[in-house]
Amino acid sequence: MIWAEQPPGNWDTSGVTDHALRYFDDYLPGASYDCGSVSVSEAEIISFAIQFDPQPFHVDPQAAARGPFGGLIASGWHTAALVMRQLVDHYLSAEASLGSPGLDEMRWPEPVRPGDTLRVRATPVEARRSLSKPDRGILRTLIEAVNQDGRTVMRATATNFLRVRPDPDS
Amino acid sequence: MIWAEQPPGNWDTSGVTDHALRYFDDYLPGASYDCGSVSVSEAEIISFAIQFDPQPFHVDPQAAARGPFGGLIASGWHTAALVMRQLVDHYLSAEASLGSPGLDEMRWPEPVRPGDTLRVRATPVEARRSLSKPDRGILRTLIEAVNQDGRTVMRATATNFLRVRPDPDS
Repeated sequence: MIWAEQPPGNWDTSGVTDHALRYFDDYLPGASYDCGSVSVSEAEIISFAIQFDPQPFHVDPQAAARGPFGGLIASGWHTAALVMRQLVDHYLSAEASLGSPGLDEMRWPEPVRPGDTLRVRATPVEARRSLSKPDRGILRTLIEAVNQDGRTVMRATATNFLRVRPDPDS
Repeated sequence: MIWAEQPPGNWDTSGVTDHALRYFDDYLPGASYDCGSVSVSEAEIISFAIQFDPQPFHVDPQAAARGPFGGLIASGWHTAALVMRQLVDHYLSAEASLGSPGLDEMRWPEPVRPGDTLRVRATPVEARRSLSKPDRGILRTLIEAVNQDGRTVMRATATNFLRVRPDPDS
């Protein structure tokens, strides 16, 4: 996805409920939720990867320069973790979130490099009430992270369980 | 998946090439590769989640006790990162690994709790040479992590690009 293909209006979430107050009912398929931006440094890339993904192109700038990406890149799991933080801060509500059973079609179409800034967007694609547990709904969300050049660096479709808004009469 | 359903023999990798020397050619669909075990503490769960996934049931033991999981659980991204480390140490070779375009059907069927020990297993499900880049193959692998009670806590099908063994005559 290139910026030019996505006019700023598509990221407008001014009409959307403040995220901390959202319940299942507030996640509207078709709307896009801007989840803000996050930057990542070479030191952060190496620190994460030394612990969790110590492949040469994630931890060793010299080896990475000679490697398949022509330089150091972030572990895809680091990118996913950075994206998750944006979702927690801007999309999922602490009041309503009941966890996630998983996600589908996770893709890293372009590498994340030191100094990149990733903007995160969440677009609900399906929302349905749980048949077995009436207190909650099941939300599927297209998650996208786009770098400063407008290139998509991560995409996935996440599933989340979310509490429905409590009945004020109960 | 329960231990009783998986006799120890299924984890036997004694006949498999040492992982550091593997090329694409060495990943055999149908074989299962034991990727060892990893334990996770409450402090590690909280430390990861404060940075990347600060939902109450990942960072606050008291709130978590009253929450949907009846106690603190690891972020699914933390679990994924722990599993990745096992794959780097026991499955992917630094010589052959050319990165991953993504993965599919990521699931967290059961929560990971403080003190859990996760055993990781990798089972190649599809291996084919790249048509566009003759130096590599495309490997799809079923990744499973099972806790000390034999319950699957993570499952995904990963795609990896791997160098084919160099022709000794070239």
